[in-house]
Amino acid sequence: MDTIKTIAIVGGTGALGGGLAMACARAGLRVYLGSRDPERASAAARQIADATGATVSGADNLSCAAEGDLVAVTVPFASQFEILRQIAGKVEGRIVLDTTVPLVPPKVARVQLPAEGSAANRALAALGSGVRLVTGFHSVSAQKLSKGEKIEGDVLLFSDDVEAREKVVGLANMIGLRGIHAGPLANSVAGEAMTSVLIGINKRYGVREGAGIVVTGIAHDA
Amino acid sequence: MDTIKTIAIVGGTGALGGGLAMACARAGLRVYLGSRDPERASAAARQIADATGATVSGADNLSCAAEGDLVAVTVPFASQFEILRQIAGKVEGRIVLDTTVPLVPPKVARVQLPAEGSAANRALAALGSGVRLVTGFHSVSAQKLSKGEKIEGDVLLFSDDVEAREKVVGLANMIGLRGIHAGPLANSVAGEAMTSVLIGINKRYGVREGAGIVVTGIAHDA
Repeated sequence: MDTIKTIAIVGGTGALGGGLAMACARAGLRVYLGSRDPERASAAARQIADATGATVSGADNLSCAAEGDLVAVTVPFASQFEILRQIAGKVEGRIVLDTTVPLVPPKVARVQLPAEGSAANRALAALGSGVRLVTGFHSVSAQKLSKGEKIEGDVLLFSDDVEAREKVVGLANMIGLRGIHAGPLANSVAGEAMTSVLIGINKRYGVREGAGIVVTGIAHDA
Repeated sequence: MDTIKTIAIVGGTGALGGGLAMACARAGLRVYLGSRDPERASAAARQIADATGATVSGADNLSCAAEGDLVAVTVPFASQFEILRQIAGKVEGRIVLDTTVPLVPPKVARVQLPAEGSAANRALAALGSGVRLVTGFHSVSAQKLSKGEKIEGDVLLFSDDVEAREKVVGLANMIGLRGIHAGPLANSVAGEAMTSVLIGINKRYGVREGAGIVVTGIAHDA
């Protein structure tokens, strides 16, 4: 199976988007950055290209979504539905990685699931079933991704399309994380809800670098 | 704050209940085991007493629920509401640990949340708000608990009553696990849903002893 060689990141000038872009560029992927503001995307792209030597370009979200073996969406929960509706026509039949966590400020350490049951279900409603939707990267530290620091936590990945999920597991592994097949989209709620739990743990236990989760018992060569 | 010295386990002849009973007896707690069938409870109690030297007694669920500094409920999801309704009058004002995971056979590796949103919300509906409800122990391996094997995974604990949660964190630590404050009851859905994810991981990755999760970044003396 072909690995992912090019990635488009819609919302690529946000914290997680920027971190993911840096990590992918560092791993040698061709990166397309998208933003509502194409000039901001181009500036961020130049910065990442300078830092990594990779080919990175910036554009508006819609143009960005037309590119890439994979389209990652890293936007705030409040913008998720609208932006996914915008790009739906561009991503038909393609692999989309939605990283949205349903955080509702100010109580972001409290699980507050949307009426659809999960951000994954909302993504499915916005994109339609013709898209190869994968969700995950919910609790990955943007800061560590960006800096290229060793990340202990696992990346749980959810999809009803096992082959698409396998590609995203491969991408996670390629950028130095451990991707894990965590089941169908119906299971995405576990990864989404756990993110609020981890935010609360960061505060309560004073975890500065951001708590993550590791799944125990999986052989290292799995 | 006083630690928990006596524990009642409603549904104590099931796998998790039996494992928890063994672990508590081994740690020197006084254990009350409950079952629908009091004779079965008494037989199980004798077995645990013989194996550990602790004081363990068996009774029907209702009598059992009248005892203990803490009442743990370890019953299948299908029986949860009915049994909690039965014991509600006995546990008013006391600490109840509900361990129910909303598994719906045969697809137990698929997250299938109840209409109430979580087993925690269902427990709250059955018990009323006068009970000091804590939820957790969702993904703890009954087998390892029973055998006294080292358990790597953390025990996420949820409650709106911080003092009650602190006592259950203490109990988890007392029996050789690491209890973690994981936020309000609204967050319980994260631990419940993660259990289905872990069941799927056990199957996919061939984890015989049962996968668990560890939260990274918490100092060991936290």
